[in-house]
Amino acid sequence: MAKARHAHGVDPALKQNALTRLKRIEGQVRGVSRMVEEERYCADTLIQISAIQESLRAVAQVLLRNHLEHCAADAIRSNDSDRRERMYDELTELFFKHVR
Amino acid sequence: MAKARHAHGVDPALKQNALTRLKRIEGQVRGVSRMVEEERYCADTLIQISAIQESLRAVAQVLLRNHLEHCAADAIRSNDSDRRERMYDELTELFFKHVR
Amino acid sequence: MAKARHAHGVDPALKQNALTRLKRIEGQVRGVSRMVEEERYCADTLIQISAIQESLRAVAQVLLRNHLEHCAADAIRSNDSDRRERMYDELTELFFKHVR
Amino acid sequence: MAKARHAHGVDPALKQNALTRLKRIEGQVRGVSRMVEEERYCADTLIQISAIQESLRAVAQVLLRNHLEHCAADAIRSNDSDRRERMYDELTELFFKHVR
Repeated sequence: MAKARHAHGVDPALKQNALTRLKRIEGQVRGVSRMVEEERYCADTLIQISAIQESLRAVAQVLLRNHLEHCAADAIRSNDSDRRERMYDELTELFFKHVR
Repeated sequence: MAKARHAHGVDPALKQNALTRLKRIEGQVRGVSRMVEEERYCADTLIQISAIQESLRAVAQVLLRNHLEHCAADAIRSNDSDRRERMYDELTELFFKHVR
Repeated sequence: MAKARHAHGVDPALKQNALTRLKRIEGQVRGVSRMVEEERYCADTLIQISAIQESLRAVAQVLLRNHLEHCAADAIRSNDSDRRERMYDELTELFFKHVR
Repeated sequence: MAKARHAHGVDPALKQNALTRLKRIEGQVRGVSRMVEEERYCADTLIQISAIQESLRAVAQVLLRNHLEHCAADAIRSNDSDRRERMYDELTELFFKHVR
Protein backbone atom coordinates (compact mmCIF):
# COMPACT_ATOMS: atom_id res chain seq x y z
CA MET A 1 0.00 0.00 0.00
CA ALA A 2 1.09 3.55 -0.72
CA LYS A 3 2.42 5.57 2.17
CA ALA A 4 -0.43 7.50 3.83
CA ARG A 5 -0.59 11.10 2.63
CA HIS A 6 -0.98 13.83 5.21
CA ALA A 7 -2.77 17.17 5.38
CA HIS A 8 -0.74 20.35 4.94
CA GLY A 9 -2.31 21.78 8.04
CA VAL A 10 -5.26 21.16 10.29
CA ASP A 11 -6.60 23.81 12.59
CA PRO A 12 -6.62 22.27 16.13
CA ALA A 13 -10.12 23.59 16.95
CA LEU A 14 -11.46 22.17 13.71
CA LYS A 15 -9.79 18.82 14.39
CA GLN A 16 -11.41 18.67 17.83
CA ASN A 17 -14.75 19.68 16.31
CA ALA A 18 -14.53 16.84 13.75
CA LEU A 19 -13.49 14.28 16.39
CA THR A 20 -16.37 15.25 18.69
CA ARG A 21 -18.84 14.93 15.82
CA LEU A 22 -17.44 11.51 14.84
CA LYS A 23 -17.72 10.28 18.45
CA ARG A 24 -21.38 11.32 18.41
CA ILE A 25 -21.89 9.56 15.06
CA GLU A 26 -20.51 6.32 16.54
CA GLY A 27 -23.21 6.64 19.21
CA GLN A 28 -25.85 7.26 16.55
CA VAL A 29 -24.80 4.07 14.73
CA ARG A 30 -25.06 2.08 17.98
CA GLY A 31 -28.52 3.61 18.48
CA VAL A 32 -29.61 2.31 15.08
CA SER A 33 -28.24 -1.16 15.94
CA ARG A 34 -30.41 -1.08 19.07
CA MET A 35 -33.45 -0.10 17.01
CA VAL A 36 -32.86 -3.02 14.63
CA GLU A 37 -32.29 -5.36 17.61
CA GLU A 38 -35.60 -4.28 19.16
CA GLU A 39 -37.39 -4.55 15.80
CA ARG A 40 -38.49 -0.94 15.88
CA TYR A 41 -40.70 0.40 13.10
CA CYS A 42 -38.53 0.40 9.96
CA ALA A 43 -39.56 3.89 8.87
CA ASP A 44 -38.37 5.29 12.22
CA THR A 45 -35.07 3.41 11.83
CA LEU A 46 -34.66 4.73 8.28
CA ILE A 47 -35.14 8.29 9.55
CA GLN A 48 -32.36 7.72 12.10
CA ILE A 49 -30.07 6.40 9.36
CA SER A 50 -30.79 9.54 7.39
CA ALA A 51 -29.87 11.61 10.48
CA ILE A 52 -26.46 9.85 10.54
CA GLN A 53 -26.00 10.69 6.87
CA GLU A 54 -26.63 14.36 7.66
CA SER A 55 -24.13 14.22 10.55
CA LEU A 56 -21.51 12.73 8.22
CA ARG A 57 -22.15 15.48 5.69
CA ALA A 58 -21.52 18.04 8.43
CA VAL A 59 -18.12 16.45 9.22
CA ALA A 60 -17.30 16.27 5.51
CA GLN A 61 -18.11 19.97 5.17
CA VAL A 62 -15.70 20.86 7.99
CA LEU A 63 -12.95 18.73 6.41
CA LEU A 64 -13.54 20.08 2.91
CA ARG A 65 -13.30 23.67 4.17
CA ASN A 66 -9.95 22.77 5.73
CA HIS A 67 -8.84 20.95 2.59
CA LEU A 68 -9.58 23.99 0.42
CA GLU A 69 -7.77 26.40 2.74
CA HIS A 70 -4.71 24.24 3.25
CA CYS A 71 -3.92 21.41 0.82
CA ALA A 72 -5.88 22.69 -2.16
CA ALA A 73 -4.79 26.32 -1.79
CA ASP A 74 -1.17 25.21 -1.51
CA ALA A 75 -1.42 23.54 -4.92
CA ILE A 76 -3.57 26.24 -6.53
CA ARG A 77 -1.20 29.00 -5.36
CA SER A 78 1.87 27.19 -6.66
CA ASN A 79 3.63 28.13 -9.88
CA ASP A 80 3.53 24.54 -11.10
CA SER A 81 0.69 24.52 -13.64
CA ASP A 82 0.56 20.71 -13.81
CA ARG A 83 0.11 20.55 -10.05
CA ARG A 84 -2.64 23.16 -10.25
CA GLU A 85 -4.42 21.20 -13.01
CA ARG A 86 -4.22 18.00 -10.99
CA MET A 87 -5.83 19.77 -8.02
CA TYR A 88 -8.73 21.13 -10.13
CA ASP A 89 -9.31 17.58 -11.40
CA GLU A 90 -9.02 16.08 -7.92
CA LEU A 91 -11.49 18.56 -6.43
CA THR A 92 -13.97 18.06 -9.27
CA GLU A 93 -13.81 14.29 -8.89
CA LEU A 94 -14.09 14.58 -5.11
CA PHE A 95 -17.29 16.59 -5.33
CA PHE A 96 -18.97 14.59 -8.03
CA LYS A 97 -17.89 11.09 -7.16
CA HIS A 98 -17.59 11.20 -3.43
CA VAL A 99 -19.52 14.03 -1.81
CA ARG A 100 -23.29 13.57 -1.91
CA MET B 1 -42.34 10.89 24.17
CA ALA B 2 -44.58 8.65 22.11
CA LYS B 3 -44.36 4.94 22.72
CA ALA B 4 -41.87 3.36 20.29
CA ARG B 5 -43.58 1.81 17.30
CA HIS B 6 -42.52 -1.66 16.22
CA ALA B 7 -42.14 -3.45 12.92
CA HIS B 8 -44.84 -5.90 11.86
CA GLY B 9 -42.23 -8.49 11.13
CA VAL B 10 -38.49 -8.71 10.61
CA ASP B 11 -36.90 -11.65 8.88
CA PRO B 12 -34.21 -13.03 11.30
CA ALA B 13 -31.59 -13.42 8.54
CA LEU B 14 -32.19 -9.85 7.41
CA LYS B 15 -31.97 -8.59 10.98
CA GLN B 16 -28.61 -10.33 11.43
CA ASN B 17 -27.45 -8.96 8.07
CA ALA B 18 -28.33 -5.39 9.12
CA LEU B 19 -26.67 -5.77 12.54
CA THR B 20 -23.46 -7.12 10.99
CA ARG B 21 -23.34 -4.22 8.55
CA LEU B 22 -23.94 -1.68 11.33
CA LYS B 23 -21.13 -3.20 13.41
CA ARG B 24 -18.82 -2.77 10.42
CA ILE B 25 -20.00 0.84 9.96
CA GLU B 26 -19.09 1.59 13.60
CA GLY B 27 -15.59 0.38 12.76
CA GLN B 28 -15.52 2.57 9.65
CA VAL B 29 -16.44 5.63 11.75
CA ARG B 30 -13.63 4.83 14.22
CA GLY B 31 -11.31 4.52 11.22
CA VAL B 32 -12.23 8.02 10.09
CA SER B 33 -11.63 9.35 13.63
CA ARG B 34 -8.14 7.84 13.46
CA MET B 35 -7.52 9.49 10.10
CA VAL B 36 -8.56 12.89 11.50
CA GLU B 37 -6.42 12.28 14.61
CA GLU B 38 -3.38 11.48 12.43
CA GLU B 39 -4.09 14.50 10.18
CA ARG B 40 -4.33 12.36 7.09
CA TYR B 41 -4.84 14.01 3.72
CA CYS B 42 -8.38 15.50 3.81
CA ALA B 43 -9.36 14.18 0.38
CA ASP B 44 -8.54 10.62 1.50
CA THR B 45 -10.61 11.14 4.66
CA LEU B 46 -13.52 12.53 2.61
CA ILE B 47 -13.44 9.42 0.41
CA GLN B 48 -13.70 7.23 3.54
CA ILE B 49 -16.67 9.27 4.76
CA SER B 50 -18.29 8.73 1.39
CA ALA B 51 -17.69 4.97 1.79
CA ILE B 52 -19.60 5.09 5.11
CA GLN B 53 -22.47 6.87 3.37
CA GLU B 54 -22.61 4.03 0.84
CA SER B 55 -22.58 1.44 3.64
CA LEU B 56 -25.47 3.26 5.34
CA ARG B 57 -27.39 3.29 2.07
CA ALA B 58 -26.94 -0.50 1.85
CA VAL B 59 -28.42 -0.96 5.35
CA ALA B 60 -31.27 1.41 4.53
CA GLN B 61 -32.00 -0.59 1.39
CA VAL B 62 -32.27 -3.83 3.39
CA LEU B 63 -34.60 -2.18 5.91
CA LEU B 64 -36.73 -0.52 3.27
CA ARG B 65 -37.24 -3.85 1.49
CA ASN B 66 -38.43 -5.31 4.79
CA HIS B 67 -40.62 -2.29 5.49
CA LEU B 68 -42.35 -2.64 2.11
CA GLU B 69 -42.95 -6.37 2.53
CA HIS B 70 -44.20 -6.17 6.09
CA CYS B 71 -45.42 -2.86 7.55
CA ALA B 72 -46.23 -1.11 4.28
CA ALA B 73 -47.89 -4.13 2.66
CA ASP B 74 -50.00 -4.67 5.77
CA ALA B 75 -51.43 -1.15 5.40
CA ILE B 76 -51.69 -1.23 1.61
CA ARG B 77 -53.51 -4.58 1.67
CA SER B 78 -56.00 -3.41 4.31
CA ASN B 79 -59.58 -2.36 3.48
CA ASP B 80 -59.16 0.90 5.37
CA SER B 81 -58.65 3.47 2.60
CA ASP B 82 -57.50 6.20 5.03
CA ARG B 83 -54.81 3.88 6.35
CA ARG B 84 -53.71 3.10 2.79
CA GLU B 85 -53.56 6.81 1.91
CA ARG B 86 -51.47 7.53 5.01
CA MET B 87 -49.02 4.80 3.98
CA TYR B 88 -48.64 6.20 0.42
CA ASP B 89 -47.92 9.61 1.97
CA GLU B 90 -45.53 8.14 4.54
CA LEU B 91 -43.56 6.22 1.89
CA THR B 92 -43.39 9.24 -0.43
CA GLU B 93 -42.12 11.46 2.38
CA LEU B 94 -39.67 8.77 3.48
CA PHE B 95 -38.10 8.53 0.03
CA PHE B 96 -37.93 12.22 -0.71
CA LYS B 97 -37.11 13.64 2.68
CA HIS B 98 -35.05 10.91 4.26
CA VAL B 99 -33.53 8.49 1.79
CA ARG B 100 -30.60 9.93 -0.14
CA MET C 1 -37.81 -2.60 -28.17
CA ALA C 2 -40.32 -3.78 -25.61
CA LYS C 3 -43.85 -2.41 -25.90
CA ALA C 4 -44.24 0.67 -23.68
CA ARG C 5 -45.86 -0.15 -20.35
CA HIS C 6 -48.64 2.08 -19.10
CA ALA C 7 -49.80 3.32 -15.71
CA HIS C 8 -52.81 1.69 -14.09
CA GLY C 9 -54.33 5.05 -13.47
CA VAL C 10 -53.29 8.68 -13.43
CA ASP C 11 -55.33 11.31 -11.67
CA PRO C 12 -56.08 14.06 -14.29
CA ALA C 13 -55.27 16.93 -11.87
CA LEU C 14 -51.97 15.28 -10.99
CA LYS C 15 -51.15 14.76 -14.67
CA GLN C 16 -51.79 18.44 -15.38
CA ASN C 17 -49.71 19.38 -12.33
CA ALA C 18 -46.77 17.29 -13.59
CA LEU C 19 -47.03 18.67 -17.15
CA THR C 20 -47.10 22.27 -15.91
CA ARG C 21 -44.02 21.65 -13.78
CA LEU C 22 -42.18 20.00 -16.69
CA LYS C 23 -42.99 22.96 -18.96
CA ARG C 24 -41.47 25.25 -16.34
CA ILE C 25 -38.41 23.01 -16.07
CA GLU C 26 -37.87 23.28 -19.84
CA GLY C 27 -37.80 27.06 -19.35
CA GLN C 28 -35.32 26.69 -16.49
CA VAL C 29 -33.01 24.63 -18.73
CA ARG C 30 -33.18 27.30 -21.45
CA GLY C 31 -32.37 29.87 -18.77
CA VAL C 32 -29.21 27.95 -17.85
CA SER C 33 -28.24 27.76 -21.56
CA ARG C 34 -28.54 31.55 -21.69
CA MET C 35 -26.36 31.91 -18.59
CA VAL C 36 -23.67 29.71 -20.17
CA GLU C 37 -23.99 31.63 -23.45
CA GLU C 38 -23.49 34.95 -21.63
CA GLU C 39 -20.60 33.50 -19.60
CA ARG C 40 -22.29 34.24 -16.32
CA TYR C 41 -20.46 33.54 -13.07
CA CYS C 42 -20.19 29.71 -12.85
CA ALA C 43 -21.30 29.53 -9.21
CA ASP C 44 -24.53 31.35 -10.10
CA THR C 45 -25.09 28.95 -13.00
CA LEU C 46 -24.42 25.95 -10.75
CA ILE C 47 -27.04 27.23 -8.28
CA GLN C 48 -29.59 27.42 -11.13
CA ILE C 49 -28.75 23.85 -12.16
CA SER C 50 -29.35 22.80 -8.58
CA ALA C 51 -32.75 24.57 -8.71
CA ILE C 52 -33.66 22.44 -11.74
CA GLN C 53 -32.64 19.32 -9.82
CA GLU C 54 -35.03 20.34 -7.03
CA SER C 55 -37.84 20.96 -9.56
CA LEU C 56 -37.27 17.50 -11.03
CA ARG C 57 -37.42 15.97 -7.56
CA ALA C 58 -40.80 17.65 -7.03
CA VAL C 59 -42.16 16.10 -10.25
CA ALA C 60 -40.71 12.72 -9.29
CA GLN C 61 -42.42 12.97 -5.91
CA VAL C 62 -45.81 13.59 -7.56
CA LEU C 63 -45.29 10.63 -9.90
CA LEU C 64 -44.08 8.32 -7.16
CA ARG C 65 -47.14 9.11 -5.02
CA ASN C 66 -49.31 8.18 -8.00
CA HIS C 67 -47.25 5.05 -8.68
CA LEU C 68 -47.70 3.84 -5.10
CA GLU C 69 -51.44 4.47 -5.08
CA HIS C 70 -52.11 2.92 -8.45
CA CYS C 71 -49.58 0.54 -10.04
CA ALA C 72 -47.77 -0.51 -6.87
CA ALA C 73 -50.91 -0.92 -4.76
CA ASP C 74 -52.49 -3.01 -7.51
CA ALA C 75 -49.58 -5.47 -7.30
CA ILE C 76 -49.25 -5.35 -3.50
CA ARG C 77 -52.97 -5.96 -3.01
CA SER C 78 -53.01 -8.93 -5.41
CA ASN C 79 -53.05 -12.56 -4.23
CA ASP C 80 -50.09 -13.40 -6.45
CA SER C 81 -47.15 -13.52 -4.03
CA ASP C 82 -44.55 -13.56 -6.83
CA ARG C 83 -46.04 -10.40 -8.25
CA ARG C 84 -45.98 -8.78 -4.81
CA GLU C 85 -42.31 -9.77 -4.31
CA ARG C 86 -41.39 -8.32 -7.69
CA MET C 87 -43.05 -5.03 -6.75
CA TYR C 88 -41.14 -4.81 -3.43
CA ASP C 89 -37.91 -5.39 -5.35
CA GLU C 90 -38.86 -2.90 -8.06
CA LEU C 91 -39.71 -0.18 -5.54
CA THR C 92 -36.52 -0.79 -3.54
CA GLU C 93 -34.40 -0.58 -6.68
CA LEU C 94 -36.28 2.50 -7.84
CA PHE C 95 -35.56 4.37 -4.63
CA PHE C 96 -31.95 3.38 -4.24
CA LYS C 97 -30.80 3.37 -7.82
CA HIS C 98 -32.89 6.05 -9.41
CA VAL C 99 -34.37 8.51 -6.97
CA ARG C 100 -31.84 10.91 -5.50
CA MET D 1 -31.66 43.02 -8.84
CA ALA D 2 -27.90 42.92 -8.53
CA LYS D 3 -25.92 43.27 -11.71
CA ALA D 4 -25.21 39.81 -13.15
CA ARG D 5 -21.73 38.59 -12.28
CA HIS D 6 -19.62 37.09 -15.02
CA ALA D 7 -17.07 34.31 -15.26
CA HIS D 8 -13.38 35.22 -15.37
CA GLY D 9 -12.92 33.00 -18.35
CA VAL D 10 -14.72 30.24 -20.15
CA ASP D 11 -12.94 27.89 -22.49
CA PRO D 12 -14.85 28.04 -25.85
CA ALA D 13 -14.79 24.24 -26.33
CA LEU D 14 -16.14 23.74 -22.82
CA LYS D 15 -18.85 26.34 -23.42
CA GLN D 16 -19.93 24.54 -26.59
CA ASN D 17 -19.84 21.21 -24.74
CA ALA D 18 -22.11 22.58 -21.99
CA LEU D 19 -24.54 24.15 -24.49
CA THR D 20 -24.81 20.90 -26.48
CA ARG D 21 -25.53 18.95 -23.31
CA LEU D 22 -28.17 21.48 -22.20
CA LYS D 23 -29.88 21.28 -25.60
CA ARG D 24 -30.05 17.50 -25.20
CA ILE D 25 -31.43 17.90 -21.65
CA GLU D 26 -34.23 20.12 -23.00
CA GLY D 27 -35.13 17.23 -25.32
CA GLN D 28 -35.04 14.79 -22.40
CA VAL D 29 -37.48 17.00 -20.45
CA ARG D 30 -39.83 17.11 -23.44
CA GLY D 31 -39.55 13.30 -23.62
CA VAL D 32 -40.68 13.02 -20.00
CA SER D 33 -43.63 15.36 -20.72
CA ARG D 34 -44.64 13.01 -23.53
CA MET D 35 -44.40 10.01 -21.20
CA VAL D 36 -46.67 11.74 -18.65
CA GLU D 37 -49.06 12.79 -21.45
CA GLU D 38 -49.28 9.17 -22.67
CA GLU D 39 -49.69 7.88 -19.08
CA ARG D 40 -46.65 5.66 -19.35
CA TYR D 41 -45.75 3.39 -16.44
CA CYS D 42 -44.64 5.72 -13.62
CA ALA D 43 -41.54 3.71 -12.73
CA ASP D 44 -40.29 4.07 -16.32
CA THR D 45 -40.95 7.81 -16.20
CA LEU D 46 -39.13 8.09 -12.86
CA ILE D 47 -36.10 6.36 -14.38
CA GLN D 48 -36.08 8.93 -17.21
CA ILE D 49 -36.25 11.77 -14.69
CA SER D 50 -33.27 10.22 -12.94
CA ALA D 51 -31.43 10.14 -16.29
CA ILE D 52 -32.01 13.92 -16.61
CA GLN D 53 -30.60 14.38 -13.10
CA GLU D 54 -27.44 12.54 -14.19
CA SER D 55 -27.18 14.70 -17.34
CA LEU D 56 -27.47 17.84 -15.23
CA ARG D 57 -24.75 16.55 -12.91
CA ALA D 58 -22.49 16.10 -15.95
CA VAL D 59 -23.03 19.73 -17.02
CA ALA D 60 -22.47 20.91 -13.43
CA GLN D 61 -19.19 18.96 -13.35
CA VAL D 62 -17.96 20.70 -16.52
CA LEU D 63 -18.90 24.11 -15.13
CA LEU D 64 -17.39 23.44 -11.72
CA ARG D 65 -14.09 22.40 -13.31
CA ASN D 66 -14.08 25.70 -15.20
CA HIS D 67 -15.05 27.64 -12.07
CA LEU D 68 -12.13 26.14 -10.13
CA GLU D 69 -9.61 26.86 -12.86
CA HIS D 70 -10.76 30.39 -13.55
CA CYS D 71 -12.87 32.29 -11.00
CA ALA D 72 -11.89 30.29 -7.91
CA ALA D 73 -8.19 30.11 -8.76
CA ASP D 74 -8.12 33.84 -9.40
CA ALA D 75 -9.35 34.47 -5.84
CA ILE D 76 -7.27 31.72 -4.23
CA ARG D 77 -4.10 32.95 -5.93
CA SER D 78 -4.68 36.56 -4.88
CA ASN D 79 -2.84 38.21 -1.99
CA ASP D 80 -6.10 39.38 -0.44
CA SER D 81 -6.67 36.92 2.41
CA ASP D 82 -10.29 38.04 2.95
CA ARG D 83 -11.03 37.35 -0.69
CA ARG D 84 -9.42 33.91 -0.39
CA GLU D 85 -11.45 33.11 2.74
CA ARG D 86 -14.67 34.15 1.00
CA MET D 87 -13.87 31.81 -1.88
CA TYR D 88 -13.24 28.83 0.45
CA ASP D 89 -16.60 29.54 2.10
CA GLU D 90 -18.34 29.99 -1.24
CA LEU D 91 -16.97 26.71 -2.63
CA THR D 92 -17.85 24.81 0.55
CA GLU D 93 -21.41 26.14 0.49
CA LEU D 94 -21.68 25.45 -3.22
CA PHE D 95 -20.77 21.78 -2.78
CA PHE D 96 -22.85 21.09 0.29
CA LYS D 97 -25.92 23.18 -0.39
CA HIS D 98 -26.17 23.09 -4.14
CA VAL D 99 -24.31 20.22 -5.76
CA ARG D 100 -26.01 16.89 -5.23
